[in-house]
Parts: sequence; C-alpha cells; structure tokens
Amino acid sequence: MLLPFQNLPGRFEGEEPASVCLKSSGFFFKFLSANETGATGSHQAGFYIHRDAYWLFMPEPGKKGENQYRDVAIHWPEGTVTDSRFRWYGKGTRSEYRLTQGFHFLGEENTGDLLVLARLEESVFQGFLLSREESIESFLQELGLNPSDSGKAYGIQNGEIQLPGLQYSAEDQFESTLQDALREYLEPDAPFPAADRLARLAREQCEIYFRTGSLNLDEKLLRWIDMEYRIFRWLELRKYSHYLSQGFSTMEDMIQLSLTILNRRKSRAGYGLELHLAALFESAGVTFASQARTEGNKKPDFLFPSQDAYSNPDFPASRLTFLGVKTTCKDRWRQILSEADRIPEKHLFTLQQGISSAQLREMAEADVQLVIPRPYHRLFPESFRKQLMSLEGFVDYVRSKDSQEMLFR
Amino acid sequence: MLLPFQNLPGRFEGEEPASVCLKSSGFFFKFLSANETGATGSHQAGFYIHRDAYWLFMPEPGKKGENQYRDVAIHWPEGTVTDSRFRWYGKGTRSEYRLTQGFHFLGEENTGDLLVLARLEESVFQGFLLSREESIESFLQELGLNPSDSGKAYGIQNGEIQLPGLQYSAEDQFESTLQDALREYLEPDAPFPAADRLARLAREQCEIYFRTGSLNLDEKLLRWIDMEYRIFRWLELRKYSHYLSQGFSTMEDMIQLSLTILNRRKSRAGYGLELHLAALFESAGVTFASQARTEGNKKPDFLFPSQDAYSNPDFPASRLTFLGVKTTCKDRWRQILSEADRIPEKHLFTLQQGISSAQLREMAEADVQLVIPRPYHRLFPESFRKQLMSLEGFVDYVRSKDSQEMLFR
Repeated sequence: MLLPFQNLPGRFEGEEPASVCLKSSGFFFKFLSANETGATGSHQAGFYIHRDAYWLFMPEPGKKGENQYRDVAIHWPEGTVTDSRFRWYGKGTRSEYRLTQGFHFLGEENTGDLLVLARLEESVFQGFLLSREESIESFLQELGLNPSDSGKAYGIQNGEIQLPGLQYSAEDQFESTLQDALREYLEPDAPFPAADRLARLAREQCEIYFRTGSLNLDEKLLRWIDMEYRIFRWLELRKYSHYLSQGFSTMEDMIQLSLTILNRRKSRAGYGLELHLAALFESAGVTFASQARTEGNKKPDFLFPSQDAYSNPDFPASRLTFLGVKTTCKDRWRQILSEADRIPEKHLFTLQQGISSAQLREMAEADVQLVIPRPYHRLFPESFRKQLMSLEGFVDYVRSKDSQEMLFR
Repeated sequence: MLLPFQNLPGRFEGEEPASVCLKSSGFFFKFLSANETGATGSHQAGFYIHRDAYWLFMPEPGKKGENQYRDVAIHWPEGTVTDSRFRWYGKGTRSEYRLTQGFHFLGEENTGDLLVLARLEESVFQGFLLSREESIESFLQELGLNPSDSGKAYGIQNGEIQLPGLQYSAEDQFESTLQDALREYLEPDAPFPAADRLARLAREQCEIYFRTGSLNLDEKLLRWIDMEYRIFRWLELRKYSHYLSQGFSTMEDMIQLSLTILNRRKSRAGYGLELHLAALFESAGVTFASQARTEGNKKPDFLFPSQDAYSNPDFPASRLTFLGVKTTCKDRWRQILSEADRIPEKHLFTLQQGISSAQLREMAEADVQLVIPRPYHRLFPESFRKQLMSLEGFVDYVRSKDSQEMLFR
C-alpha cells in the first residue's frame, strides 16, 4: 500500500522560538540547572523563578506569610499541553517563586537545556525546550540576548524587548554618557563601531556604575558582558529607527537590513566575550596570544604564554596553557580537542549554565578542564562542582606557570 | 610582552554574502565543478559562465566570429583583490563565456564549493568562496534560492531579486493561474499554505508549462523544485507588500517579520525536496515509508519498501533500501550512517553539484551510494561519474527489489 505523501509526519512547521517571543506579551528563558532536572534528587520542586520575573505569571507579587499559586497552561511545539502551577512560598523563612508540576518528562540529561516560555495570554504560555547548541545560540542571537541573561523575564512593550533596569536608577546618566561617547556613530551614514570600541566602552561604563575595580574577575566579566549587550542594543535602536518609520519599498530591502542586524548580533556574540577575556588577562598581567596558529593552521582562542613559546620545541610543553572559549557548550565542545597538539589538557571557558553529568564525564575523559564563572558553579551537578575552575582560579594557574617560566629563563 | 587586545587578528567582521548580494546591482553564484577546480587537468580554462549571465560582466553580448574580454577586479573578504578577465570566445565553432585568471588558489579540494560574485560597480565585484555546508545553505536560504539555480545571474532591480524568466513567455498566464489557485491565501490574515499544498501546485504548474509528463524522472524533479521556488517567491511578495510600505514602529517588529520569512525559507528548503521525491516515488509505483522510525528513534528520510518490512526481522535485509536526502552535501553526510543499522549500504540523494575526489572516496569507503540528478553528473570528477546513480537508476534499483519481494511472498 502507498503512504499518502501529503502527510509526511514528524515535521514541525511552527514558528521559531525567537519569533514567538517577539509576538508575545512577555517571555522568560532559563538554562536548566542540575537541581532542576533531578540530578540532585530534588526533582519534585520544579523550577526556581527569580523574584523579578513574578509579573509574567501573577498580577501581584507574593505576600510575606502566605503561600499562593496560579494555574498556567504551557503549549509545546509537538501539540501537547502541560498543566503547571506557578507558586509563591512566603510562609516561615521562605520567600521564593517556583514553577511546578507537569515537567516529569525532564531528566538529568536535560541539564543545560534552555527552557523558553512566551506568554500568549494571561496564564497561557508557549514553551520550548532547546537542547542543541545551534538552537540555543540562534535563539539568543536572534533576540540579541546573552547566556548570562538566563532567568530574567522580558516584557514586550510596543513590540520592543524591555531589558530589566540598571541598578542605582542610573538610566538618565546612562543615556547621556552614551550619547556623548557614541556621538560620531549616531550619524545616519556612520558605520557601526568596531567590536573592540564597544567592548572598551562597556568596561568604562561598568567602572562608573558598578565600581567593578573592586569585584573579583568572575563577577567583573559578567558585568562587562551584560553592559556591552545594553550598549549594543541602545545603539541599534538609535541607528535604525529612521529606516523603520519610513518603511521599505521591497521585501528584499527589509530582509537585507534585517540580515545586517541579525548577522552582526551573531558575529558579535562570541567576539565580545573574547575581547573581554583578553582585557581581563591583560589587566591581571598575564601574557597570552589570541588567535595564534598551531598545527594544521588551527587557531585556538587563547594560548599562554605566547605563540613563540608554543612554536619553540625547546619551551617545555608543561608550561603552555590552552584556553578555548564558547558562549554555550553542548554538542560542539570536541572541536577544541585538535587545536593544540602540544597541550594535552585543554581548558575551556563557557557561559553555559549547567551541563549534564554524562557530558561532564566525557569532557573529563577527553582531558578538558572547564573554566566557569564562579556564580554559575551552583547550577552544575553537585558531585562535579569541585572540579570546576573559576576565572580567578584559572588566572592563578596561568600565573604559577608564568613564574615557573621566569625561573626557567 | 603583552599583545594589544584591541587588535585580535583573524576575525572577519565584514558583511555576510547574502547581504552583500542584496545590496549589489546583480550577482552570480555557482558550485565549482571538478573541471573548474583542476580535477580533470583543465585548470587554466577558468570558470564556464552561462550565456544568460553575460550582462553581469559585459554591456553587450559577445559577437560571433570574435574573441573579446573585459578586465574585472574581485575583492575577497580577507582584503585581497584578484585581477581577472571575463572572456568571450566566438571564433570558429566556439561560442562561450569564461571567467579566467587569478584563481590559482583553487585546488581540487574546492570542488563543490560555492563561488559567489556580487557586482559592486561596473567590472568590480565582491567575491566569496563558501566551503562549509552551513555557509552554503545559509546563503541560499537567506536569499530564497535553491541549489539548482547554480550558474545563473540575478539582477537586483528596486532592491528585488529578479529571477530569470520562464520559458515560452508564459509570465502572464503564470500570474493569472497563481492568482486563481492561491486566492484564499492572499487574504491579509490567511496563513501561508502548507508545504504539501505548494509542492502539489508546483507539480501541476510544471505539467502545464513544461509537459513534464514526458520528461525523465531526473529532469522532472529539477523542474518541480524550480517551479516551487518561483511560486513561493511570488506568494511571499504579495503577502508581505502591505507590511513593508506602512513601515514598522519598532525594530523588533521588523526583525520578527523578517525572522518569520527567513525561518520559513529555511524550513521549506529541505522539506519541499522530500515532498517532491515522495510524489516521484508514488508516481513510479514504488512503495516507501518517509520519516519511519529505526534504532534509537532515528528517522531516515526514506525507507523502502515499508516501516513494517524494516521492523520485521524475518524480512530479508537485502531487500530493504535506505535513502537519505540532503539539499547540499559537504561536511554533514556522515549523519546518515547511523540511521538504519539493518541496511549497510546507504543511498544518499543530493542537489549538490560537484564533490571533491577525497570526499567521494570517503563516502565510498563508508558504503554510501550517491543518487544525483543526471544533468549534474558532468560536474563531478570524471573517474567517479560512472559510480553515480541517477534518480531513474535508483527507482529501477528499488523496483527490482520490489519484484524480488513479490517472489518472496
């Protein structure tokens, strides 16, 4: 018997997560931590939701001394619906929000997956669970968001994503400082500023608003990244507003402008991170080479202490360090394994929040040492946390090799 | 010494090929054939350019009995410039255009790469050589073009891509037939028609314009695909024109509409091809299962003769056939190897035009049998051509197993 070809099954032709979020009245995304996927046995407790995100689920914040809940329906791309519950625990010493019930389909292997919830109407959401690195990065890049925005809720007002405010009610000062600093780029025909110009500006702004000088390296980096995204978005809006209001005479004109914007968001995402890491290493007095060449013209993100040291067979391999950089880290981490034959242990920095035990085991077997911003360590399976390195720890590690190098000279 | 982090080298921050083409006054793209990359020893002769594409390089077509040329400069993303020559050979029995000189950097391993030339001004082009499957597919999908458009030149008029005309000056009839057939989808709030609806319409239109009933399967499929892309583009333009002229109040509104358009182009590209293949097999009376399930929930594109036969251990494995489908085929073909353990030989259909000898050898070693539309066979390295299967050949092969199956019953 012939199958009717009109009904090839198994093809999801619905909208992509980024489109759905932009059409919604607000959305939320979050990397699933090891605790939340049951890796630590506390599976029943559901997802922790940051207090700033309550408004997406409830009209009023929860009251101290009370427990409250709201039923919410979550529609998934396969056509299924989950009846879930948004809960406020305010009794006793507790004060936290959680999204519970209906997530029994999640397992430990979903650690590090990205949960996306877009509000279609009050208490009704479209949900997505993104497992592949490519899907996660597309989602973040298309919306111009970064992994460290995980756990926040975003309003959509007049079709524009509303970033949660800066601290210290510094909005006015932010506006006027940027107007000054980026004046030349606001002219209609001026190009977008180079990546390193924006990255530097972000660090300067952070110093003003957050006194980042006194923070540890891990916290400092996260502030820099967040600030750069804010500046980037601020500039995008101002540079393109006049094109938008005048409309387009053809579809390809619109597609062309959109591709310019989308492709820049994409290419800047990883590059900004590398620039900030380079600035961090420089400020810590650590010598390095970025985009150096190794065997077969491979280009590791960072080599320590230098390209010359790596190329010099007399320089002891034990004093070389490799650092790969990936904004997210799910299925493509193996790419770094062949990028520097002289350095068997590969360090890998990522903003990925949570990785499954199975992947962590594979990485350990491949001699990959993860470098993770300290505030994200708690999102990893408990038994693996002590094997994670912080940025501070990594810089100390490289410094200790540097001092060996001094002795060696 | 510290490297200045302001100048991380090796990062191309220029525009993507699709954006550059849309901004140009016309562009050209072409899969490099084995002949053109020197695999057959005729390297000096440069690239063959189809006669319909002359206008991108020369103001007038070449004259019979004369040889002519124009110097053209091609700028590459790395900042280099190639001084090349567009030639018309009209003497004696010859009449052909070629782009020659300056391509000595190409080698046999570039077979199947996509060459893109976008005209910035008269005789000045921006060139791209895309090697990775991901880059090639992004380019084609972002522009809503398909691999079988390779070798054509596209004008940009008023910011809109101009497709080369239909044969038989059938434009007016095309317009009115589509107006009738797609009337319900042209309403402002109507959804885009489902993929199988468009695919079926494309086949019906082909029957009207090209009497495809009399063509062989290989040619028929290429006509269907081309027609579907024309209809798709026709509908896109009509559905979205009113949004464009009225402008957007916010940037994310524009991005959201663009993402809807771009994501649909992307998801439809491979799906349309599968639908047409299914229709082809059905019309040839061959039984098959599409998106059937095999080991580990893998989903091969096509299994012959059926899911039941595959799942039944008593059905002889030698009478099962596997067919994977990929619009392009460079680095991701290995994915099919694990999709059906019972069938060691994997057939793979692709619209990729030209594959390097090294990759063809690897595929043969992995027991992959390529199925390639007959008109593309000449673009492959000569020594491998006799190992390629056409669609006609593939259908005969499956039919012969079908008749074995009859005997077996």
